[in-house]
Amino acid sequence: MSSGADAASDGGRRKLNFSSGPAVLPEQVLRRAQQALIDLDGSGIGILEHSHRGPEFARVLERTEAAIREVGGIDDSFAILFVTAGATHHFSMVPQSFLAEDQTADYCHTGVWSGKAIDEARRYGIVHVACSGEPEFAAIPATLTWSASPRYVHYTSNETIYGTQWTAPPAAAPAPLVCDASSDVFSRPLALANHGLIYAGAQKNLGPSGISLVIARKDFIETGRKDLPPLAQYRTFAREHSLHNTPNTFAIYVIGEVVAWIREQGGLTEMAARNTRKASLLYDFLDQSKRWRGHARPGSRSMMNVTFRGATKELEETMLSRAEERGMSGLRGHRSVGGLRASLYNAFPEQGVHRLVELLDEVERAAPA
Amino acid sequence: MSSGADAASDGGRRKLNFSSGPAVLPEQVLRRAQQALIDLDGSGIGILEHSHRGPEFARVLERTEAAIREVGGIDDSFAILFVTAGATHHFSMVPQSFLAEDQTADYCHTGVWSGKAIDEARRYGIVHVACSGEPEFAAIPATLTWSASPRYVHYTSNETIYGTQWTAPPAAAPAPLVCDASSDVFSRPLALANHGLIYAGAQKNLGPSGISLVIARKDFIETGRKDLPPLAQYRTFAREHSLHNTPNTFAIYVIGEVVAWIREQGGLTEMAARNTRKASLLYDFLDQSKRWRGHARPGSRSMMNVTFRGATKELEETMLSRAEERGMSGLRGHRSVGGLRASLYNAFPEQGVHRLVELLDEVERAAPA
Repeated sequence: MSSGADAASDGGRRKLNFSSGPAVLPEQVLRRAQQALIDLDGSGIGILEHSHRGPEFARVLERTEAAIREVGGIDDSFAILFVTAGATHHFSMVPQSFLAEDQTADYCHTGVWSGKAIDEARRYGIVHVACSGEPEFAAIPATLTWSASPRYVHYTSNETIYGTQWTAPPAAAPAPLVCDASSDVFSRPLALANHGLIYAGAQKNLGPSGISLVIARKDFIETGRKDLPPLAQYRTFAREHSLHNTPNTFAIYVIGEVVAWIREQGGLTEMAARNTRKASLLYDFLDQSKRWRGHARPGSRSMMNVTFRGATKELEETMLSRAEERGMSGLRGHRSVGGLRASLYNAFPEQGVHRLVELLDEVERAAPA
Repeated sequence: MSSGADAASDGGRRKLNFSSGPAVLPEQVLRRAQQALIDLDGSGIGILEHSHRGPEFARVLERTEAAIREVGGIDDSFAILFVTAGATHHFSMVPQSFLAEDQTADYCHTGVWSGKAIDEARRYGIVHVACSGEPEFAAIPATLTWSASPRYVHYTSNETIYGTQWTAPPAAAPAPLVCDASSDVFSRPLALANHGLIYAGAQKNLGPSGISLVIARKDFIETGRKDLPPLAQYRTFAREHSLHNTPNTFAIYVIGEVVAWIREQGGLTEMAARNTRKASLLYDFLDQSKRWRGHARPGSRSMMNVTFRGATKELEETMLSRAEERGMSGLRGHRSVGGLRASLYNAFPEQGVHRLVELLDEVERAAPA
């Protein structure tokens, strides 16, 4: 079943959801989750009500991890961890674990999110900014300069607010890469090489908010500080299979279903093909438009979040109000940059992009010249 | 609709769930959550998919907080916070914020959970153990000795593993009380007086795992350290209405529905009456039994988690296996203490306790004398 069919199967009552996160999920997954709320896998008890130490949830955890490993192509040198927190928590947790006061970590500054990560890292050690897209953040910088001996290299693979994305991880990094992949994880094949740790808030391509997926090299985890509270150490999650304390059991269940859906649809290669097709439809329109203009520069454009402006504020407001009338939601740009933003995560249907482009065109043509 | 009616309405397919947490929730709430997964409040978008910054989720957050304030009788001198983490996280977060290296906090040691809280507090400052139920933890100690000038006094209002509960908060504490109320919050009227902060993992009486409710005096929060990461400071949650980063939106929705259900059922006074009635049924049976024996002593007995042992290991195993056959789940005691445990949270139906007592009696009578 395609996402398009999903949307149709609800008789069109569900809106087209362009939200940047939490964001649209496959309707097939939501239907299964409905059943699991009352009765998980025929156990006679709902997913919210099962002990995290019981055999039913053990199976959920096991199949979720197995699906992630299979779809992501992740071998046993990496641990799969579920941390009850969003990505912001890792902005502190990473440097607290891996960056001593007299050590330097290299950070790529490509927008608001990497900026926040930098601010937090400075509490714990020395930050060398390896590149910066300031002040416009319209492109991922082409030139990076490394410090003498960084502890790790941090980058944000996709910046939701400015709509930029790394096409590939930073090359020739002199230390393990640490990646905030919250907004593009599992939207394309994973490029795991040279990574020590990848963290991702789940609420875009993976599932509900209130949890993050961490994919981390076991030997990298072991280099972290040992004198921190158990929940502040990644090794605790690795050693205890994310069960040191009660995890977000529902979110783990939903992530398992979402990743199974990705597998069923053809895996990450297919996701990448669809996402590229969807985003290109919109970028192609913007490039030929006289009244709409994309923010990010070619070569740095996000396949997840397309940010754009109208020639006038009036055009933008007309578009936003017409979109609401047509059942298109979540198109207003982030409060810090304004304009419009269309988030086109895995579960967003291609047909929805056609509808958006049609409306943008219609509003453009109707506007006074 | 009573919990009993709830259970009946599913044609008896749902099991009797004695799990200590995550635990049974009102079926009426689960049915509403099913609908909200596809379409929250007629918005055309599901609760997992709504932006945490949109008007629809703003209404969910607002009504959840309002219901908590109304049902709990909580005035504006307290903040209501939702932290994406379980209670274990607060074991560290509380002393990190409020306990300096040269300060002392008084901790009441009544079981495994307060023991863990003590271990974490020792990382940050000095712990004075005000009372201890070691080694049996069968009673809440009657005598407490305070340190000269404690920063705060920490207690665990209910200990799920040993099945003990404070009938009232520690009296005459010389500093603000800090309470881990994970396993009995909203099971009876709140005794807020003298409290600085109450934290509670939601997965017993309130909703899903992966979130905690914090009820904290605003002036107490302000006394916490300011040089910590934003998410490590309670004041951030208070100032930004739990929206500094993406919260666990689904859990906040479910908590709102559960608390609305409590209100509909008659509020916390009614919950306390039901819970006392349910637990008393079981304790009364245990007190007269020749082969079953409760662990906790009268006066310290938990109304939430009734822990008990059989005269022989065989009796216990027979009971556990017969219970499974009859659709009763989650009765095995915690791995650290063995025996049996019946958790009887708000949503557990009284009829279920009758069924348990009948089976305990039946197994006792059938056992070799």
